[in-house]
Amino acid sequence: MRILVLGADGYLGWPTALHFSARQHTVALVDSFLRRDLHKQRGTGSLTPIATMPERISAWREVTGTELPFYELDITDYAAISAVIAEFRPDAIIDYAEIPSAPYSMIDREHSIVTQRNNVEGTLNLLWAMREFAPDAHLVKLGTMGEYGTPNIDIEEGWIDITHNGRTDRMPFPKQPGSFYHLSKVHDSDNIAFTTRIWGLRATDLNQGVVHGIETPETALHDTLVNRFDYDEIFGTALNRFCVQALTGNRITVYGSGNQRRGFLNIRDTLQCVELAVTNPAARGEFRVFNQFTEVFSIRELADTVARCMRSMGRDCEIAHLDNPRVESEDHYYNPSNKGLLDLGLKPVYLSDDLLASALSVVSRFAGSSDARAMEPATTWR
Amino acid sequence: MRILVLGADGYLGWPTALHFSARQHTVALVDSFLRRDLHKQRGTGSLTPIATMPERISAWREVTGTELPFYELDITDYAAISAVIAEFRPDAIIDYAEIPSAPYSMIDREHSIVTQRNNVEGTLNLLWAMREFAPDAHLVKLGTMGEYGTPNIDIEEGWIDITHNGRTDRMPFPKQPGSFYHLSKVHDSDNIAFTTRIWGLRATDLNQGVVHGIETPETALHDTLVNRFDYDEIFGTALNRFCVQALTGNRITVYGSGNQRRGFLNIRDTLQCVELAVTNPAARGEFRVFNQFTEVFSIRELADTVARCMRSMGRDCEIAHLDNPRVESEDHYYNPSNKGLLDLGLKPVYLSDDLLASALSVVSRFAGSSDARAMEPATTWR
Repeated sequence: MRILVLGADGYLGWPTALHFSARQHTVALVDSFLRRDLHKQRGTGSLTPIATMPERISAWREVTGTELPFYELDITDYAAISAVIAEFRPDAIIDYAEIPSAPYSMIDREHSIVTQRNNVEGTLNLLWAMREFAPDAHLVKLGTMGEYGTPNIDIEEGWIDITHNGRTDRMPFPKQPGSFYHLSKVHDSDNIAFTTRIWGLRATDLNQGVVHGIETPETALHDTLVNRFDYDEIFGTALNRFCVQALTGNRITVYGSGNQRRGFLNIRDTLQCVELAVTNPAARGEFRVFNQFTEVFSIRELADTVARCMRSMGRDCEIAHLDNPRVESEDHYYNPSNKGLLDLGLKPVYLSDDLLASALSVVSRFAGSSDARAMEPATTWR
Repeated sequence: MRILVLGADGYLGWPTALHFSARQHTVALVDSFLRRDLHKQRGTGSLTPIATMPERISAWREVTGTELPFYELDITDYAAISAVIAEFRPDAIIDYAEIPSAPYSMIDREHSIVTQRNNVEGTLNLLWAMREFAPDAHLVKLGTMGEYGTPNIDIEEGWIDITHNGRTDRMPFPKQPGSFYHLSKVHDSDNIAFTTRIWGLRATDLNQGVVHGIETPETALHDTLVNRFDYDEIFGTALNRFCVQALTGNRITVYGSGNQRRGFLNIRDTLQCVELAVTNPAARGEFRVFNQFTEVFSIRELADTVARCMRSMGRDCEIAHLDNPRVESEDHYYNPSNKGLLDLGLKPVYLSDDLLASALSVVSRFAGSSDARAMEPATTWR
């Protein structure tokens, strides 16, 4: 298949591009390097020493003999992205090309607007370009489990059958997102659903949990293919932060009680899920939603797991509870469904102590160059 | 109370400002004249000869002795709107300051983006300005019944109790808006709800039906206070178009079968509703939603009513069904609740043949200057 990966320089975009390329698909890459720029502005960066895109592409050519065409452009530029879609004629467009940070969107007014404008207008451009140049292509859009919030009922996959006053309809599952970033993803989902209805586009919304892991079989083939690893308060995940804190002898910082429960999955499962979505496309006019995670943990359980692994490696590790900078429920029901991708054949890689120990050993090669200040929670929701 | 009206030059903003001013509230006006500019660009305009804002304000001063401070600014300009909020210290902010047209948003990519950017970023600015300068003020935001679409269950007011797999929660009512414009209102509602939750702002979302009528007791006090009346395919409503078509001897053009059912209310009821919302404010942290309409009609019923009124005035009137340029259900269940405002004391003015006949007589004074081409459906959803 012909697969266009948007955000192909990113933590998931890069391994996704390699994954499909290794499986003999024709892959093209798009990125604007916005993430690298934002890191530069903030004085932060990936813990792992990621190569430039030209270096990455020539390493992949060296290892596999395969060329990866790359387009440096921002999908908020319609002329640029529509020209690529018209030229490349993708069967599937995998869209990771968004600002993916809740704290970034909460810094101040400007950041809330930049996040929503960038994400929503990029997606709108994509939809109009598909209508014009690739109406039969399949949009595989990365959403987030954070779109749902933490309702007191089971979370279904995008749609829910509601019976009310004796009548029944299949309705969009109500969303209660927890940041301006998460809101931008809800706006996206609503805009996409509309265009499947009026233009008959095909789309899959992957509401993804928090991804852990660094390496994939393809990024491990060459040092220059190394994947990015964000651990700062803006772009890093809690688990990444915990790993770096533990390995540098700092306290693991949990926001609030840590009883907040979330969906998680390994990066290799992200690749499986996206491949399952791409190779089993949505129908024309279908807005298909999968919840893309494999297990649920509380943040406290994650912290405990990291501490346990450290102790088994003979190192002490302290857990500290900070005042929660976010506004979120800390004790809540959480039972999301993830049936759709399992039914398509997903075979999860669960977060075992062994898996975490191996992740810790990768991180430990670079932990010495980490910046403790970058992990302090400077952004508050209030 | 101190009341700031945003979009105060508009069809609802202007009568709203006069309504509160006549009731001894302290009212300030904000508008950017975007609607007048968009009309100018398109070569269309209000059927009624509306005065300039300085003329309107001096007519009101002449009639009542009351001064209406006016700020010409666009709420997408944060420095400008936040300065006004800081200076005026409103108890309530009534927000009509949006691009209000479904067809406008569907013209092409640029118009979809302009609509969403203008509406969503204006509202975001407002929320941040309230957080900074008026955290206790009450936001009264005009939404639309079109946010809900036409689900096969009763439409509640913003929230619905859902019981699912034996558990129950009060959830946002699922929305299925029918244009990029209606989507912008859903994005607004989601952004506002979030800020009531995290910042404790107070907000009322008024999901309004289609408004009919021109005059209010205050606009009738002086010719220069005359309200705008849009009848073109972009900014006009179906009923306005039907009136102008009938009075100019043209066919009434119904999109499709005309079985589409919608909520409607008279402009005087809009003023009642907004006053009820303002004088009974939402609590801190509350996202309150009212469905603001008084009766439900099908488009075909409206066309029939206009034709009947014309015939009783001794004039013939033909109804034509055009191919529907929109993508919408033409045969659907529609039973929205409007309990909240009735419970607060709303006394509706229903659309009787008498009321329509009197509206027709107002319109007939200006119908001679109408432009038949402006009423042709040039914008298609597909």
